[in-house]
Amino acid sequence: MFFASDNASGVPPQVMAALVAANDGYAMPYGNDPIMDRVRALIRSTFEAPEAAVYLVATGTAANSLALAMLCPPWSAVFCHRHAHIEADECGAPEFFTGGAKLVLIDGAHGKMDAQALAATLARTGTSVHGVQQGALSITNTTEAGTVHTPAEVAALTATAGDLPCHMDGARFANALVADGCTPAELTWKAGIDVLSFGGTKNGLLGVEAVVIFDPAKAWEFELRRKRAGHLFSKHRYLSAQMLAYLTDDLWLSLARDANRVAARMGKGIAAIPGVSLLHPVDANIVFAAFPRAAHERAQAAGAAYYPMADLSDTEATPARLVCSWSTTEADVDAFLALIRG
Amino acid sequence: MFFASDNASGVPPQVMAALVAANDGYAMPYGNDPIMDRVRALIRSTFEAPEAAVYLVATGTAANSLALAMLCPPWSAVFCHRHAHIEADECGAPEFFTGGAKLVLIDGAHGKMDAQALAATLARTGTSVHGVQQGALSITNTTEAGTVHTPAEVAALTATAGDLPCHMDGARFANALVADGCTPAELTWKAGIDVLSFGGTKNGLLGVEAVVIFDPAKAWEFELRRKRAGHLFSKHRYLSAQMLAYLTDDLWLSLARDANRVAARMGKGIAAIPGVSLLHPVDANIVFAAFPRAAHERAQAAGAAYYPMADLSDTEATPARLVCSWSTTEADVDAFLALIRG
Amino acid sequence: MFFASDNASGVPPQVMAALVAANDGYAMPYGNDPIMDRVRALIRSTFEAPEAAVYLVATGTAANSLALAMLCPPWSAVFCHRHAHIEADECGAPEFFTGGAKLVLIDGAHGKMDAQALAATLARTGTSVHGVQQGALSITNTTEAGTVHTPAEVAALTATAGDLPCHMDGARFANALVADGCTPAELTWKAGIDVLSFGGTKNGLLGVEAVVIFDPAKAWEFELRRKRAGHLFSKHRYLSAQMLAYLTDDLWLSLARDANRVAARMGKGIAAIPGVSLLHPVDANIVFAAFPRAAHERAQAAGAAYYPMADLSDTEATPARLVCSWSTTEADVDAFLALIRG
Amino acid sequence: MFFASDNASGVPPQVMAALVAANDGYAMPYGNDPIMDRVRALIRSTFEAPEAAVYLVATGTAANSLALAMLCPPWSAVFCHRHAHIEADECGAPEFFTGGAKLVLIDGAHGKMDAQALAATLARTGTSVHGVQQGALSITNTTEAGTVHTPAEVAALTATAGDLPCHMDGARFANALVADGCTPAELTWKAGIDVLSFGGTKNGLLGVEAVVIFDPAKAWEFELRRKRAGHLFSKHRYLSAQMLAYLTDDLWLSLARDANRVAARMGKGIAAIPGVSLLHPVDANIVFAAFPRAAHERAQAAGAAYYPMADLSDTEATPARLVCSWSTTEADVDAFLALIRG
Repeated sequence: MFFASDNASGVPPQVMAALVAANDGYAMPYGNDPIMDRVRALIRSTFEAPEAAVYLVATGTAANSLALAMLCPPWSAVFCHRHAHIEADECGAPEFFTGGAKLVLIDGAHGKMDAQALAATLARTGTSVHGVQQGALSITNTTEAGTVHTPAEVAALTATAGDLPCHMDGARFANALVADGCTPAELTWKAGIDVLSFGGTKNGLLGVEAVVIFDPAKAWEFELRRKRAGHLFSKHRYLSAQMLAYLTDDLWLSLARDANRVAARMGKGIAAIPGVSLLHPVDANIVFAAFPRAAHERAQAAGAAYYPMADLSDTEATPARLVCSWSTTEADVDAFLALIRG
Repeated sequence: MFFASDNASGVPPQVMAALVAANDGYAMPYGNDPIMDRVRALIRSTFEAPEAAVYLVATGTAANSLALAMLCPPWSAVFCHRHAHIEADECGAPEFFTGGAKLVLIDGAHGKMDAQALAATLARTGTSVHGVQQGALSITNTTEAGTVHTPAEVAALTATAGDLPCHMDGARFANALVADGCTPAELTWKAGIDVLSFGGTKNGLLGVEAVVIFDPAKAWEFELRRKRAGHLFSKHRYLSAQMLAYLTDDLWLSLARDANRVAARMGKGIAAIPGVSLLHPVDANIVFAAFPRAAHERAQAAGAAYYPMADLSDTEATPARLVCSWSTTEADVDAFLALIRG
Repeated sequence: MFFASDNASGVPPQVMAALVAANDGYAMPYGNDPIMDRVRALIRSTFEAPEAAVYLVATGTAANSLALAMLCPPWSAVFCHRHAHIEADECGAPEFFTGGAKLVLIDGAHGKMDAQALAATLARTGTSVHGVQQGALSITNTTEAGTVHTPAEVAALTATAGDLPCHMDGARFANALVADGCTPAELTWKAGIDVLSFGGTKNGLLGVEAVVIFDPAKAWEFELRRKRAGHLFSKHRYLSAQMLAYLTDDLWLSLARDANRVAARMGKGIAAIPGVSLLHPVDANIVFAAFPRAAHERAQAAGAAYYPMADLSDTEATPARLVCSWSTTEADVDAFLALIRG
Repeated sequence: MFFASDNASGVPPQVMAALVAANDGYAMPYGNDPIMDRVRALIRSTFEAPEAAVYLVATGTAANSLALAMLCPPWSAVFCHRHAHIEADECGAPEFFTGGAKLVLIDGAHGKMDAQALAATLARTGTSVHGVQQGALSITNTTEAGTVHTPAEVAALTATAGDLPCHMDGARFANALVADGCTPAELTWKAGIDVLSFGGTKNGLLGVEAVVIFDPAKAWEFELRRKRAGHLFSKHRYLSAQMLAYLTDDLWLSLARDANRVAARMGKGIAAIPGVSLLHPVDANIVFAAFPRAAHERAQAAGAAYYPMADLSDTEATPARLVCSWSTTEADVDAFLALIRG
């Protein structure tokens, strides 16, 4: 019963096998390995984006920050949701990589930016030399609240942003995509996204994220920024191999469907328990719910791993975040539900 | 016959096996995995440094830059050899991570900083508010010229630096250590080194370097800098597992001895060929030699991979860098020597 | 009738005379002029702070940003009011100087930070390596809303901040001080302030602000940061001379009293007009009021200079900011009031 | 007898009078004062550059650093002379403003960059993603050695730099110009210069430098960088007024001619003294000479102010830097020569 984070799960056998296979002989370093050529081609075809520039890094923070640094000059604003990962969980990495851009926080229910709030903030940003200028929009999909933007919702936000470059933090992009049931292109460039952080780590890789730059005009700048930040791997083939396995036979989609399915089961089970409430819609692989203190105590005593979001003594109904991954089983979920039910 | 770089080689089976073994079940993320506890303990005992702070990152550039940023304020100077990797091959990463410190270049034969040149430069640095202040000394061992500093040479440089913090770029630390035949402690903190970038990638890992901070006073700052730079891995166990395998049964030393031995064979063989000269002493796993153009052409026609260090048409005797790794065989070396001999 | 900003006014004759007097012969550059010795001594005695380090710069943005950079590492948060000058009107200068610290915005009525809101934000900041750490508190006095913190209010905020270093943006410090009727020490270090941006420009100088560092431990770092940012003046005597004149015979207090007195007259006059409302208490030299559109049109037609804070067509009662300076006359105020009254 | 620096001299009466005149009534802040319109027009006509963007700042370090930051991305190299002010005397300001660009040092006799050395360095810079890229060329005129580049010498360097943007640090531009006897356009954009730091402070202003951007494509970026660095003055009219006086009736040229003339007298006098040697040609207003220790002692005992460039006890002939300004008199020079002669 491990629901603390999807980044505590391991990787499926296909990924490990690919790593072993890649370990044969010599390979040119720094992304010049032949596996990367295949990755690039596969991502371009997956996203129907034959011109896209594609780069691999090992962490989501690196992917997001490098992308934003390419899009936003230091004197500009990144517009993101108040609870976005780039604001709350990266120790100021966007500020470091951009040279001090400002994250301007937009409210919105259930982790989704409100388009009107965005419009109002945009209207008062960059009106003179005295304030920071408009830099970029960053949308998280799947959001930190576990909800998913539809292509239409993404398009509404990017339309509000007008000419601003638009970034999507897709650390859990696969989970959003299978929830939406649309194509990768529909959820990204067709909806106005210019750069995608295309997550792999949380969905079954050891540590690989792709940055997909749909307009490759600044691709060389990205390469220099990646190198300068220590994120260009010499033995790059081991990143390439993971991503190749991920994309082969739609493994990535299959892993995300597994995670979403068990999370939905968890959500439905939770909602049926008297005195327990869901805090956000369960669109993807994360469940937020508030339980009585006694339920927390039963779960923790039984060894369930997850993060209560407040001190248990603070309140009778303490919220919790429960994250499912590709490796979470239905039995895990059912056992947990039984503990909460009491 | 692959001599282009040690970072084009793969990893030995022990390392891959450790990765597979680590992929079992859930593990706490961000360095809180139990394998990391063993790594930390092993590095501390290996270096006879029970208080040392130990962190893992995935690239040498990250290790060096994070270490220097912890040691050097933005208005300071990093004293390094003119051909140091941090100066020549990291696209300005030290400047990025430190917030704009200045690399001040010291000359010296065969990639080794001249202590008198260092003393002279130190004497004129930081004398007023108008210039940058003294920040840190950075010594590379094994050097970029393939030579190795002895503990006494390291100590002479750190003594010259006085109170300045001293960093060692040990991307090829294992190769230096087995060449010197001393203990890890003797080549580092006993010789005045405060922080070591302890390389693994070039010597047989997929991508792991440890930063060993002998005085842990600023360890928390290091952790924040690592996170903020996107270099804290969520699925950290896969870094830990590599490093654990590296340290187990002295695998790291064995791999370095193998690389050094074949490089010595290459050096000896080269030196015996009329018209071919060694450019630097072959102390570790890199050979620099100048060959006639015809020899280059024979080697390249036969598929030998390495970097000529100038345009072949420029000169009759064109220098080349030939790097051996743990996976280079004596047969590779002998075949190459035969081609050069003609 | 010029109410657009106090920085559009000139300087009183004493200041210009001091500048002329300072222009005699040679003077050592970079703050080594003898006038600066007198300034330092006067500021120390004025603030009852014999150990304080005192530096001059030419702009408020430089003073604030250098002070914050000295106090806050790049991975930390500066807690300030949502409408603070450092957040809204410095084009990201604090982010630039600190190397990317994050401004965390606190709400509060009338430009004054709410201590409970501050406490709540502090409680959730810096709880792990994943978020930015607590850096410094920055309080503006006189606030951007024209209100004034009392020493007790300042002390309540700095007490809430606990061990955090506390900065005061005192671009209009003189106006706050005479409003409070307390001593400079009472409004600063006795109330928990560690560093003060002590404004001169808005209150009658050509362009000088002092940075007063009550605990001088980091004074040398400040000097290096100032130099490195291009804010160390070679012909420093011309800054010193302005500040000396400012402090001599309490000129600074007298100028601030003049500005506050005419603003109070404006506030009282406005409040008495039917259909016109004050938006904030008039504590110092700034009046915020909302007038009918017709009143705006009369004032503007008569040449009154000030900033309406919204498009006149938006609303019947459009807010305006009216700033008085040492050079504003009662006649100016009365003429303006007559226009608003209609 | 003050030869320590030209920045220890005062300002001529025309400048002070202009300041007094500018102090009348209200003026729009932040460069929107009508005096600045006149300055902009005068600089454009002086430089035959009707499209040039023109900005004022208060220090040479700010002018240089803001210009270089506009021209050079963080991952690039600024090519400058080993003894350039931006390298040696700005405490790393170019690194700070650019976000960590690297100053790459070029040798050359008498403070003037050697074109062949520049070509050789350029040829090995920016050849791959692993090193910093080519950013900008920066030429100092008058050099730190007191020598002057002719327009042809400037053109030879900018031609060597090819497409790279070219900056001139003209802290002593007026001294170079009158030495060359050419037009401002000939010494700048006609010789390939893209941005000029046009010095005023060392040549008779209180503290004003203009940045003249011949191609104004990035002018708005410059404005944002200036604001963000705290170098946009609210009471900007006081900068404008100084610069207007400087340009009126060719005051700037007249002041520079005065300084150069007395320096030439000093140079000629020195050269005629047995046992005293000039270290560099005296092209402008600075004299470098080596005297016997006894001569130093006589000069210092008589109160002459200047900087010996080494410890007097080090050597029999200790070098000294002697700077003349617009306010240095022939009597000062003659008195000093008498002391050296003994």
